[in-house]
Amino acid sequence: MRTGIATVCLAGTLREKMQACAVAGFDGIEIFEQDLVTSPLSPEDVRKLAADLGLTLDLYQPFRDFDSVPEDLLAANLRRADAKFRLMSRLGMDTMLLCSNVGTATIDDDELRATQLARLADLAGEHGVRIAYEALAWGKYVNDYEHAHRLVGIVDHPNLGTCLDSFHILSRDWDTAPIEVFNPEKIFFVQVADAPKLSMDVLSWSRHYRVFPGEGQFELAKFMGHVVRAGYTGPVSLEVFNDVFRQSDVERTAVDAMRSLIWLEEQSAAWLEASQALAEGEVASGVTGQAPGAPARRRYPMELATLPRVAEPAGFNFAEVRTGDTAGLETLLGQLGFAFNGRHRTKDVQLWTMGHARVIINEEPPAGGQPTSAPAIPAAISAVGFDVDSPVIAAARAQQLKAPAVPRKSQANEEIFQGFAAPDSTEIFLCQGNPDGTAAWTREFGDGLDQPAADRAANPGAVIDHVNLAQPWQHFDEAVLFYTSALALEPQPFAEVASPTGLVRSQVMLTQDRGVRLVLNLAPLIQQEGTTPGTAAGIVGTPGPRPGYQEHIAFAVDDLVATARAARDRGLDFLQIPANYYEDLDARFALEPDFLATLRDLNLLYDRDADGEFLHFYTATVGSVFFEMVERRGAYDGYGAPNAPVRHAVQYDHLHQLARRP
Amino acid sequence: MRTGIATVCLAGTLREKMQACAVAGFDGIEIFEQDLVTSPLSPEDVRKLAADLGLTLDLYQPFRDFDSVPEDLLAANLRRADAKFRLMSRLGMDTMLLCSNVGTATIDDDELRATQLARLADLAGEHGVRIAYEALAWGKYVNDYEHAHRLVGIVDHPNLGTCLDSFHILSRDWDTAPIEVFNPEKIFFVQVADAPKLSMDVLSWSRHYRVFPGEGQFELAKFMGHVVRAGYTGPVSLEVFNDVFRQSDVERTAVDAMRSLIWLEEQSAAWLEASQALAEGEVASGVTGQAPGAPARRRYPMELATLPRVAEPAGFNFAEVRTGDTAGLETLLGQLGFAFNGRHRTKDVQLWTMGHARVIINEEPPAGGQPTSAPAIPAAISAVGFDVDSPVIAAARAQQLKAPAVPRKSQANEEIFQGFAAPDSTEIFLCQGNPDGTAAWTREFGDGLDQPAADRAANPGAVIDHVNLAQPWQHFDEAVLFYTSALALEPQPFAEVASPTGLVRSQVMLTQDRGVRLVLNLAPLIQQEGTTPGTAAGIVGTPGPRPGYQEHIAFAVDDLVATARAARDRGLDFLQIPANYYEDLDARFALEPDFLATLRDLNLLYDRDADGEFLHFYTATVGSVFFEMVERRGAYDGYGAPNAPVRHAVQYDHLHQLARRP
Repeated sequence: MRTGIATVCLAGTLREKMQACAVAGFDGIEIFEQDLVTSPLSPEDVRKLAADLGLTLDLYQPFRDFDSVPEDLLAANLRRADAKFRLMSRLGMDTMLLCSNVGTATIDDDELRATQLARLADLAGEHGVRIAYEALAWGKYVNDYEHAHRLVGIVDHPNLGTCLDSFHILSRDWDTAPIEVFNPEKIFFVQVADAPKLSMDVLSWSRHYRVFPGEGQFELAKFMGHVVRAGYTGPVSLEVFNDVFRQSDVERTAVDAMRSLIWLEEQSAAWLEASQALAEGEVASGVTGQAPGAPARRRYPMELATLPRVAEPAGFNFAEVRTGDTAGLETLLGQLGFAFNGRHRTKDVQLWTMGHARVIINEEPPAGGQPTSAPAIPAAISAVGFDVDSPVIAAARAQQLKAPAVPRKSQANEEIFQGFAAPDSTEIFLCQGNPDGTAAWTREFGDGLDQPAADRAANPGAVIDHVNLAQPWQHFDEAVLFYTSALALEPQPFAEVASPTGLVRSQVMLTQDRGVRLVLNLAPLIQQEGTTPGTAAGIVGTPGPRPGYQEHIAFAVDDLVATARAARDRGLDFLQIPANYYEDLDARFALEPDFLATLRDLNLLYDRDADGEFLHFYTATVGSVFFEMVERRGAYDGYGAPNAPVRHAVQYDHLHQLARRP
Repeated sequence: MRTGIATVCLAGTLREKMQACAVAGFDGIEIFEQDLVTSPLSPEDVRKLAADLGLTLDLYQPFRDFDSVPEDLLAANLRRADAKFRLMSRLGMDTMLLCSNVGTATIDDDELRATQLARLADLAGEHGVRIAYEALAWGKYVNDYEHAHRLVGIVDHPNLGTCLDSFHILSRDWDTAPIEVFNPEKIFFVQVADAPKLSMDVLSWSRHYRVFPGEGQFELAKFMGHVVRAGYTGPVSLEVFNDVFRQSDVERTAVDAMRSLIWLEEQSAAWLEASQALAEGEVASGVTGQAPGAPARRRYPMELATLPRVAEPAGFNFAEVRTGDTAGLETLLGQLGFAFNGRHRTKDVQLWTMGHARVIINEEPPAGGQPTSAPAIPAAISAVGFDVDSPVIAAARAQQLKAPAVPRKSQANEEIFQGFAAPDSTEIFLCQGNPDGTAAWTREFGDGLDQPAADRAANPGAVIDHVNLAQPWQHFDEAVLFYTSALALEPQPFAEVASPTGLVRSQVMLTQDRGVRLVLNLAPLIQQEGTTPGTAAGIVGTPGPRPGYQEHIAFAVDDLVATARAARDRGLDFLQIPANYYEDLDARFALEPDFLATLRDLNLLYDRDADGEFLHFYTATVGSVFFEMVERRGAYDGYGAPNAPVRHAVQYDHLHQLARRP
């Protein structure tokens, strides 16, 4: 598959955009006209720069307001086109995007439109240019891709074809199956964009909220499957108008974009395979009238590369907190009932366990980073380990998806983890758990034996239930695609919860069997200003961590009330829940009085839905990190979202009280 | 008019919100349930705090999912209501908001609904509580305020009335005139919110994009006029769900909110007056069958306070740039053709003029601020003076609208300006121009004479055309209301222009005769992070000002080509426009070749629309400030928006080149 991207997707100057596209590995680019008009580079400069960078210049875009106009306007339009064709010749470009008319269209007549398109195609032919005609979703008369294709058929000119743009097709819910029977020689270009499903006018949706494939909710693999089946072999090019990408680091956004196409290519191949298997199953089971049999895998003119395949991770292998000041964490973990498994034999690292849940406290400085002491780095979640079938294959997949590898020092005879950095800079490690739930690397700690048998016996059901990571706002979509593509997690519909500093967007990423639950939290902007994720910056004007960057690790246990009682006996600093909460809980759920008293007594939170019940509590915060203990009853699948505002409010109050202390 | 605000409008804890509401001057508040549930304050604490702060507790809200349900659910709902009524009694509150059912409604039967509402009203009556029933715009069966009011009429219970919420009514485009004939005793509460007109699902629109009155596009004065005519005398209370306000400084947002109600009160009185005048005109002209005459101004049960009335400002009196390094500005102004009018006789301030355009260069430190030297503060627009009929009346109005006054040191015999600070901290001064276009204060400069006669003769038409101020993102809506209410400027539909660092939102504020054109620019977020308006912070990792905070003053002249030639002869550093721009201009407008050559030769930009033509050029940037010279031909009323991306791109390129210099 030939990959492309429109320069309008990216921030910066034309030169910066082109360089970033080349570095990210794109085959070609679309030149967005405004990027050229505002550039000090001459057309010849751009042509040479593209050649030097190994980029093809695939599409000049957009040409607007052409069809469906009166004759006098047509003459002016042809003059305008002629100027652009001459410019394209200087750029060495041969394909121009023509959008169906929105602004100046006044005549709804397909015959007239065909005549006008033919005149443009004639003129284009004189300059060796091909016109790719696209139906905008909000085109005045032409807003359906089949209509645009029909017009191309009527004109039947070698210099006129169509451009298929997934946004304009899927935003209108048009059926994409008819693409399969299009003449591939008349599909001049294919643009892809994903988008979250929003109920708003399609123009605003298109101009501000498009995202890269895998970051939205469109069925892009299916769209691409139909395009491939039609026999199209040209570029598959991203055209994504997004308010955030337009202002983000250009090189980073280009890599995010490239990752989305690599992933889409794989997903398209998988869709074709699944769809063929389904069709063959129908044949075999006699659903169609044709003879049964198992024909060879169909091949298409477009080659689709595949990635190393991985199953979804089975669970969390460990979570790691980095800090130069470990005392607070050690106290909390001990009070929660974690067992200390000793220090690593060569590194400044501790292992704490509770049943199958493992927490590492890491005092080593990050690679290339500051030492964790002097001044001590406040605690922050620095790494998460996932149990996968084959760490090597999973790492190869991540690498092909352009995940940046993270080096980790290892001595001889020590487990070497395959690791890479997530968009929020958390380190992600691919681990192989043992079938009995142990992990070989734990022998590098303490006396070299397994974790204390007493701990495992006492907490047979304890596991990491979920990890909640704060996300920088400009990398949120990138993070969703990253975990979707590299780790095969599935994004769920997001929730928004109120906090004293604004709405917090909460995006759950899951495996199907719920072995891994990762929660990405997007804090309100004001909380993020001037902070770097993973560090603890102050509330404006005050010391201490910001609410927006608090992160946590949640552990599931079998008996939360018993766990909470034991923790209280050990002196745990619980997050204090206001009395008003329990009154409201009673009004909502009519709880049994003894049970309500227990909840109140232990600072437990409670939720219930049709699937089951949820009990949980939180610890105080150390640095930017706190812990949660949960008990899931029945098939409860949530995270106690109705209780999240209480947590945020109490944590906010604590921070402000700390800030006020002399 | 009794003023109120719902705690959900604001950031912070319940205590912080209540304190901010009291400081801003609200009469009462609505308690949003979640704010109480998440608070460590007991209901008794809240009651006492409100009394201490002089706030009434007007509405407990919201109670949801009550009506249109089966009998078993009704029993649970009544139990839930009973708990809330008991809570309200502890709070000392007597009115509860009941929203029409969205989630659990299953039965569409007005008779059943009336029966259920009557049961709730009975129960409420036992606790001394009144129920204000509101039709949510997305209510399942009840989503029309007249429907809710009809149900209240059917039930006819002293403890059941309706709540009118402007958002739920105006978002659905319901006619508001029928409110006038409502029984005022059945209107238990009135909530007001404004909103920009957006084409999106009404629930998302309501939850994220509401703004305070005057910051959106709803006809709120008319809505309030009908409410007043109905005879309502209760609180008029803000209920505004807004993602930005929820995270902004609570005291500041409360003042913004209070300003919106003060302004709405005045606008409502004006609407009533205009509407009565219209009706009387109709009577007088015999449109209705009644006898002609001029009845006395009608009085209503609700008292509406008015503000000192001001006409829109006639023009700009001056613009001021503050800096500790004046050389660059002096050079630019001189090259543009400005005359140096000398220094102020007691202050470290220079005056430069060109015809009627006055620019002050101020080297004095801001009140309470750092000295402008050591290190020298880079140039930034610090003040704008407006010509008004009566500075004293205009200042009184601004003060009543809670505009913060700015002190400015003055010696005896010097002009004392009335001034206040805009939300972006620009100082706004109210001045009195002379009928001949001169200003008395200019005699405090230089030799005490008028500005050089040669300058005025040479540039008879030169004026400040517009001033463009960069706005911090979290104060944008506040700024719109500020200039609307305090200076009687009219917001226009906003534009968005592309820049290499993201989309820039551009909001024009006008007087009707175009004597004042103020442009508020909202830069992309990444450009704003870590910066303070009015200061010049660097591009991330580089020195120098950020593109997002560049601001400018534009001067109109009669002959731009001549002005540009003279400036070039004086060696002006023009913003260099790329050659590609002129090719595109030619393709679009088919310009006369000599004219195009002149444009290209002088780095002039050009625009044309149905009203006329626009020629303009920009200077290089000094600190965060640059200048623009414009010529308006015909009735051209815009700002060359199609050229804005060129300006942004070239300025961005310059900054990056500066940053790369060793």
